[in-house]
Amino acid sequence: MFESAEIGRTVGKKEYEPRLERLRTDLLKAQHALALTRFRLLVLVGGVEGGGKTELARTLVDWMDARGLQVEAYGDSSDEEAERPEYWRYWRTLPASGRGAILVGTWYTRPIVARALKETGQGACDAALDRAIAFETMLTREGTVLVKLWLHLSRKEQKKRFKELEADPVTAWRVSKRDWEYARRYDRFRKVCARAIARTSTADAPWTVIEATDRRYRDLTAGETLLAALNDALARAKKPVPAPVPDRPKAPRVSVLTRLDLTRALDKRDYEKKLAKQEARVALLTRDLRRKRRALICGFEGVDAAGKGGAIRRLISAIDARNCRVMSVAAPTDEERAHPYLWRFWRQLPRLGHATIYDRTWYGRVLVERVEGFCAAADWRRAYNELDAFEEELSESGVIVCKFWLQISADEQLKRFKDRVQTPFKQYKITEEDWRNRGKWEAYQAAAVEMLDKTGTPYAPWTLVEAQDKHWARVKVLKTVADRLEKEL
Amino acid sequence: MFESAEIGRTVGKKEYEPRLERLRTDLLKAQHALALTRFRLLVLVGGVEGGGKTELARTLVDWMDARGLQVEAYGDSSDEEAERPEYWRYWRTLPASGRGAILVGTWYTRPIVARALKETGQGACDAALDRAIAFETMLTREGTVLVKLWLHLSRKEQKKRFKELEADPVTAWRVSKRDWEYARRYDRFRKVCARAIARTSTADAPWTVIEATDRRYRDLTAGETLLAALNDALARAKKPVPAPVPDRPKAPRVSVLTRLDLTRALDKRDYEKKLAKQEARVALLTRDLRRKRRALICGFEGVDAAGKGGAIRRLISAIDARNCRVMSVAAPTDEERAHPYLWRFWRQLPRLGHATIYDRTWYGRVLVERVEGFCAAADWRRAYNELDAFEEELSESGVIVCKFWLQISADEQLKRFKDRVQTPFKQYKITEEDWRNRGKWEAYQAAAVEMLDKTGTPYAPWTLVEAQDKHWARVKVLKTVADRLEKEL
Repeated sequence: MFESAEIGRTVGKKEYEPRLERLRTDLLKAQHALALTRFRLLVLVGGVEGGGKTELARTLVDWMDARGLQVEAYGDSSDEEAERPEYWRYWRTLPASGRGAILVGTWYTRPIVARALKETGQGACDAALDRAIAFETMLTREGTVLVKLWLHLSRKEQKKRFKELEADPVTAWRVSKRDWEYARRYDRFRKVCARAIARTSTADAPWTVIEATDRRYRDLTAGETLLAALNDALARAKKPVPAPVPDRPKAPRVSVLTRLDLTRALDKRDYEKKLAKQEARVALLTRDLRRKRRALICGFEGVDAAGKGGAIRRLISAIDARNCRVMSVAAPTDEERAHPYLWRFWRQLPRLGHATIYDRTWYGRVLVERVEGFCAAADWRRAYNELDAFEEELSESGVIVCKFWLQISADEQLKRFKDRVQTPFKQYKITEEDWRNRGKWEAYQAAAVEMLDKTGTPYAPWTLVEAQDKHWARVKVLKTVADRLEKEL
Repeated sequence: MFESAEIGRTVGKKEYEPRLERLRTDLLKAQHALALTRFRLLVLVGGVEGGGKTELARTLVDWMDARGLQVEAYGDSSDEEAERPEYWRYWRTLPASGRGAILVGTWYTRPIVARALKETGQGACDAALDRAIAFETMLTREGTVLVKLWLHLSRKEQKKRFKELEADPVTAWRVSKRDWEYARRYDRFRKVCARAIARTSTADAPWTVIEATDRRYRDLTAGETLLAALNDALARAKKPVPAPVPDRPKAPRVSVLTRLDLTRALDKRDYEKKLAKQEARVALLTRDLRRKRRALICGFEGVDAAGKGGAIRRLISAIDARNCRVMSVAAPTDEERAHPYLWRFWRQLPRLGHATIYDRTWYGRVLVERVEGFCAAADWRRAYNELDAFEEELSESGVIVCKFWLQISADEQLKRFKDRVQTPFKQYKITEEDWRNRGKWEAYQAAAVEMLDKTGTPYAPWTLVEAQDKHWARVKVLKTVADRLEKEL
C-alpha cells in the first residue's frame, strides 16, 4: 500500500513555479465552473501525523477561491455533537451545491485510532468503515465530488518532521505528546491504515496516497488529483440528465394494509379514560429521557386526512414543551434543496433528553417523490438502504425511533375531504393537490406497502394504526410510544 | 398594571364556539397572506407560572397552519448555547420570512427571575431589559410582526391552578418545587414583572396583559390580539416600499484615513523575522482561549485588493485549524436573505476556545449596502447602533473582538488590479464590479470614515492598517491580535 509513497519523490523549485501557475489557473476555472452545477466538492485529507494535513488544506484554499471553499478540521466533540449521532458534525458542516470543503480529520479518524490502540476489534472497525463507505456512496449519488487524499510519511521521515516542527517556536505546539505516542506505534498504525484504505477505496471514491516528504511534490500532486476529479465531474455535469418519471405501482390485492381491521373504535368515555392514562405514562416516561441519556423521535406517515395532526397534538401535550419540537415537513428551503435529501432531517435531530416529532418524514423519498416523479427511480430505489442506515445511526446513538403509518379507507378520506371543504377553518387543509393525489390512491398504497415491507427494523419498527376512528388511533399512538419508552428506558 | 387582569372575565361555551370558528378562519387567512410577504411572525408568551403559557402556544398552533408555525420553548442552555452570547439561542431559532414562531420563556425570563430573587440590582435588570428592547426594535425594523402576550393570574388563582394541576396525574409533573417557591414570592414577582412590562411596552412592540383564569377567555383574547397584529402588518405590507437609493457621501479632505502614513514598510528580512515572532505569539496565546473561556473574532474590511486575504492567511496559519474558521462574506443564501441581516454572522459565532475570522463583515451594511443602495437610508442609519449592540453582546459573553481596516491608496489599488489582470490565477479576483467600485472610491472612503468614527469602542476597537506595503500590514495585524490577546487573557 505505502511502498510507492516512500520513494523519495521531490519537485524542484524550477519545475514547481510554472506547474503551479498552470495548476492554479485550471483549478480556479474548474472551481468556478463547478459552482454553476449541482455538485459540491469534498476533499478529505487523511494521513499520518506530521504529513502536513492542515498545511495542505490551507494551501489548497489559498490556491483556489476562498469564497466558495471552507476548511473544516474536527477536534473534540462539543456537548451538542456528543449528544447526537457521530456523523451529525459532518452533516452539519456539509457544503451546499456549488460550494466546497476541505476536511481535515474525518470519519476515518476514530475507527482507525481505536483499532490501532486495540480498543476495538476488527469487526467493529470494519463496521465503522462500512458506514463510511455507505455515507460516501450516498454523498456521491447526491452530487458530491469526493476526493480522498492520504498523506504518507515513512517512520523515519515522520520522526524527522516532528523534530523540525519542535525546533521552531512557531510550530512547536503542533507536536503533542500524543503525536509522539502514536509515532512509537508507527507500524501498528501503518497496518491498520493500510487495511482501512484498501477497504474504503471504492470505485466512486478511491483514496490517493501521496508521499508527503517533499512539500512541493505533496501539494502539486494533491492539487493535480483534485483538478482531475473536478474536470471529471464537470464532464459528467454536461451530460443531460433524463427527467425523472413518476412511478405508479399497482397495489397488491392483499397486503398488510388491506388486512388492518378499520372497524376498531373507542367510544368517547372509554377514549377519554384511556387517553388520560396513556398521556400520563408518556409524560412520566419522557421525563426520564435526560437521565437515561436517550432521545425520542416519532415519525408520522399516512394518506392525506389520516389524522396525523390530531394524533401529534395529543402526543406532544404530554411532553414538556422545552424538550419537544414538532417538524412539519413541507417544501424544502433553498439551502435544503442544495444538500442531500436527508440533510433537513439531520438538521432537526433532538439532543439527548429531547424529542422531535416529524409530521411526514424522510420516507417522502419512497412515497411522494417516487409516485410523483420528483426523483429518479435509481434515487428512490437506493433510499430504502439509506433510510435504514440513517435510523440505525440514530438508534445506536441512543435515539428511540417510533414510526407510525395511519391508515384510513378511501371512502373515509373522501368524507373527511368533504368535511374540510365545508368547515371554514379547515378549508386551507384541502387543496387541488389533495384531490389529485386521491386519484393515485392505489399507487400511494402500493408504495406504502413496499416501504413498510422494506424498512421495518427491530430498532425502528413501523406501527400500523387503524385510523378510521380517531379515538382508537390516538390512544394506539400514545400507548405504542409509552410501551416503547418503558421497554427502552 | 395587573388590576384589569383580575376582574374575573370569562367567555361562556355558547359564545365561545361561534367566536372561535370566525377567529380560526380569519387567523388562517391572515397567516397564509403573511406567508407571501417579507414579514415573519413572532409571538412571545410570557406571564406567571400556571397561567398556561405552553397550553396557549399549542392552542394557537392548533388553530393555525402548523406547517408555518413552530413552538419554541427554552429550557436550560446546552453547552454550545452557554458558550455563546445569551441571545444566540433566539437567533438560532428565529423563523424565516413568511413563517412564524411562538416563543415560551424568552429573553425576559432571566432578567425578571434574577431581579425577583434579588440576584441582580435594578441597574443590571434595566440594562437587560434595554437589550431586549433593542433586539425587538431591530426585529420589527427587519420585518417582524411581534406580538407580546402576558398571561396573568392573581395570587389566589395561581394557587388554585397549581392544586388542580397536581391533582391530575397527567399534569402533576408540570408543577415543580420551584413553581411553589416562586409562588410564595408572588408579590415580589408581581412588582418586578409590572416594572418590566411597563419598561418594555414600546410603541413598536407593546405587551398585552391577558387575564388567564378562564381558558376560553384567555385563548380567544390571545387569538384576537394576534389577528389584529397580523392584519395590521398585512395592511402595511400592501403599501409600496420606495426603492432604496444609493448614498454617495463626499469624503472629508482630512480624515483618519488620509492621515495614515502609507509609506510604512518592512524589508523582506525584517519582515520574516517579525512575522515569525508574532506568529509564535498568536500561536501560543490562542491556545489559552479554551482554558480562559474566551473566544476570538477578527473582522477584516478595506477596499478591494487591500490585502485582506493575505493578512488572513498569515493569521490563521498560527491558529490550530480545529479551533478556527474563516468566513468569506459573499452574497447571502436565500435562508440568510429571509432573516435579519445580522443572522448570517450569528450563525458562525465561535464557541468559547474557538476563533472565527470574517473576510468582510457585518459592516457591509454601512459600506457596500449604503453606497450601492442595497438597503434604505433608514436601515443603514440605524445599523451603527445595532452593530455596536452586537459587538457589546459578543464582548460580554467572552469574545475578544478585533476589527481591521486595511488602507491603500487609489494608485496602489490600480496597480494591484492591473497585476491581477495579468496573472492568470489572479484574474478571477478582478471583476467588472471592482472597476465600477473604483469609480466610487470617494464615496467608499467617506462611508468608511463615518463607520470608523461611529463604531470604535473599547470592547471592539478598530485598528487602521497601513496596507500599501503588504509586509508591514501583515505584521501589524498579527501584532495587534497578539497584543490584544495578551491583554485580555
